[in-house]
Amino acid sequence: MSEQNKYMMGEDRIPKSWYNITADLPAPPPPVLHPGHGGPIGPDDLAPLFPMALIGQEVSTERHIEIPQPVRDIYKMWRPTPLYRAHGLEKALGTTARIFYKYEGVSPAGSHKPNTAVAQAFYNKQEGVTKLSTETGAGQWGSSLAFAGGLFGLEVKIYMVKVSYQQKPYRRALMETYGAKCIASPSTETDSGRAILAAHPDSPGSLGIAISEAVEVAAKNPDTKYALGSVLNHVLLHQTVVGIEAIEQMEMADAYPDVVIGCAGGGSNFAGIAFPFIGKKLRDGKDVRVLAVEPAACPSLTRGVYAFDFGDTGHLTPLVKMHTLGSEFIPPGFHAGGLRYHGMSPLVSHCKELGLIEARAYHQNPCFEAGVLFARTEGIVPAPESNHAVRAAIDEALKAKQEGKATNILFCLSGHGHFDMQAYTDYFAGKLVDQDYDPKELEASLAHLPKVAAE
Amino acid sequence: MSEQNKYMMGEDRIPKSWYNITADLPAPPPPVLHPGHGGPIGPDDLAPLFPMALIGQEVSTERHIEIPQPVRDIYKMWRPTPLYRAHGLEKALGTTARIFYKYEGVSPAGSHKPNTAVAQAFYNKQEGVTKLSTETGAGQWGSSLAFAGGLFGLEVKIYMVKVSYQQKPYRRALMETYGAKCIASPSTETDSGRAILAAHPDSPGSLGIAISEAVEVAAKNPDTKYALGSVLNHVLLHQTVVGIEAIEQMEMADAYPDVVIGCAGGGSNFAGIAFPFIGKKLRDGKDVRVLAVEPAACPSLTRGVYAFDFGDTGHLTPLVKMHTLGSEFIPPGFHAGGLRYHGMSPLVSHCKELGLIEARAYHQNPCFEAGVLFARTEGIVPAPESNHAVRAAIDEALKAKQEGKATNILFCLSGHGHFDMQAYTDYFAGKLVDQDYDPKELEASLAHLPKVAAE
Repeated sequence: MSEQNKYMMGEDRIPKSWYNITADLPAPPPPVLHPGHGGPIGPDDLAPLFPMALIGQEVSTERHIEIPQPVRDIYKMWRPTPLYRAHGLEKALGTTARIFYKYEGVSPAGSHKPNTAVAQAFYNKQEGVTKLSTETGAGQWGSSLAFAGGLFGLEVKIYMVKVSYQQKPYRRALMETYGAKCIASPSTETDSGRAILAAHPDSPGSLGIAISEAVEVAAKNPDTKYALGSVLNHVLLHQTVVGIEAIEQMEMADAYPDVVIGCAGGGSNFAGIAFPFIGKKLRDGKDVRVLAVEPAACPSLTRGVYAFDFGDTGHLTPLVKMHTLGSEFIPPGFHAGGLRYHGMSPLVSHCKELGLIEARAYHQNPCFEAGVLFARTEGIVPAPESNHAVRAAIDEALKAKQEGKATNILFCLSGHGHFDMQAYTDYFAGKLVDQDYDPKELEASLAHLPKVAAE
Repeated sequence: MSEQNKYMMGEDRIPKSWYNITADLPAPPPPVLHPGHGGPIGPDDLAPLFPMALIGQEVSTERHIEIPQPVRDIYKMWRPTPLYRAHGLEKALGTTARIFYKYEGVSPAGSHKPNTAVAQAFYNKQEGVTKLSTETGAGQWGSSLAFAGGLFGLEVKIYMVKVSYQQKPYRRALMETYGAKCIASPSTETDSGRAILAAHPDSPGSLGIAISEAVEVAAKNPDTKYALGSVLNHVLLHQTVVGIEAIEQMEMADAYPDVVIGCAGGGSNFAGIAFPFIGKKLRDGKDVRVLAVEPAACPSLTRGVYAFDFGDTGHLTPLVKMHTLGSEFIPPGFHAGGLRYHGMSPLVSHCKELGLIEARAYHQNPCFEAGVLFARTEGIVPAPESNHAVRAAIDEALKAKQEGKATNILFCLSGHGHFDMQAYTDYFAGKLVDQDYDPKELEASLAHLPKVAAE
């Protein structure tokens, strides 16, 4: 183990631009449709919610989009992130493969989410916005926007799903430490919140309800915009700093990956590590497999249909074409809150349809088993979401061992699990159930997909 | 803020040896006395508890002690740690000072503690030990030894103060994730535990009781040794990697510090950042102030007496000369568990007596105020212990501003607060009390200091 353990780069190597995969795709992504008239939406439709710079990025076909210097300056707080060679894990597996992981948990909020939170806060500030509203479930996104908004002097209001608000007081404490205001959703502050509370005073809340509250606040207040932590094109764009750095660091390690792995909920973490490698494959013919890993209990990419659907359960958002389980689908309880989304980012879905990526689903117990082995050999306790990528990397390494191949495996360790230790406690206590989704519920949910003229 | 934000070094710059300040001190430290016969203790007296290599380091007068390659290889997981320039904090303070901090929270367990945990696990493994026992209060040390022991295949048993065991289930989960066994103390596993439980069935436990249990297990089992996370010379020695790296990084930043600051409980974090700078001052005449910061509720350096005393409340340990509040002193409750120790490391105490260091005490509310400002400007949420150093650094920066001086301030940010968010919640709720220690209790505790012939 006297070999190099991690590949670090200086601040001058923070990417100067984000990578927009749309420029390299063999077919353009489908349009985004207006929920009312069914035709394509324009920038004006989105203007109440997002600053124009982000709307521009949402529809851009430029390959490289410059990262503003103030954003790069804040990235310096934790970027470039380290690329690790997993010597300890390799040894434990006795594999012939070389395993590398890009570790995004070194960010202040502990995951990849600040990569876009900082950019979004910057563009909002630049256009005179003073307040941001958003929702959060597990809390990774909420704490990242709290951190980023605080740096730019923006007021950040976070609607946190009530059951999480109560069960994860330390995530809430983190958001408050960064200066944000965290509100249990449904709340009495919005029409949508009050309507829910009138009908269900004891509602535990849901991501769908929290989105409705955050969107409503932004739509009604000219000084407030809405921020989303995944799914949208501009969010995925901002995450590509991860893969761009990883390409350079894999070159430092003299090992181009045979397979690139990321866990996928809304898709931004996966896109962050994967899109730059897919772009290299499309442009330079580099040979690389790309694998998205999702929970078996919420398997949009592996079991969903590719169709136009709403992004939220309240049906306020535009219609996007994506792999979806239907916006009414409610997955069974599992411990990776960041992967509990009914749909998959339209860009990731499009790449799947184009045959550019593979997808695989795992139950949670094998993921935690992988996470514990990782913690004991590599030291870092992964977030439950990241454990899906760890599991897939281990399985790829075991396959390589069986085949006697010296495969190079790269995965993104998207965050640490310091605020998710209850999940590990439950795992050790044998309390985690590998529940499948209910096929009848999926059928019912898919039966309610919106009818779209364009299809 | 386009200036450099952090100073990183490659793995080849991990120090090759630890620095032993004893070699440079103008007077040798006082001897360690046997609790029975009162004469100096020898290596054989310590052999039941520690491996010979560590006993040798405990009494060594060599200036440089080589770091074994397997220890350096594990250090690569997180070392060299970054040195940050606190641009955001400086701006918020409007100070003329430059503030730097060495961040030890990037270690897997989240603090400086693994620097010695890994070394201790290595030497124990090398001498055929298969099990380690220790105690933990706040949990930083327990999780570090769990991590390190796991890497070397050692069974680690941790006696955790019962009230912490119940209040901090996530620290316990972290230790278990690393494969250690965590037991609420007092337990029924030891004579000392059973004796306490017989007298006080509802005992919440104390660090003193937990130490007695861990020491008893080591003393009675030939395959088990005891490991301590602070106070002893060899523990401080292992922490000097922090200061050695910082010297090199401050040179990269072209800014030798005017003042070096560390928080001090048992003294190992403070010694880690400070001793290499004190050594440079002693050898090369470098001009630097060195400041130890402690809690006003447990002020051994600023209010204790310099005398021979026991290291534990059970009076099982040797007698060491140190700044002490008396081994029976019980500080009022406050949120920096790592600083709740009645004594100060003998080596740090000796340096204080020699006039090589200054000491200062703070109440907890101003420390949390400093920690929140730090989190909002630098992104990292500090551990409650580290907040003491942050407070002192801010005060030094404000003094520099007042005097219009371009002071270079360096402090050690010993760990993150991810497992201490309840403290921040209490702070925001206005529940933290700036309680002083009870002067009568201190008087009573000091009246029971052991009588020592050598004095």
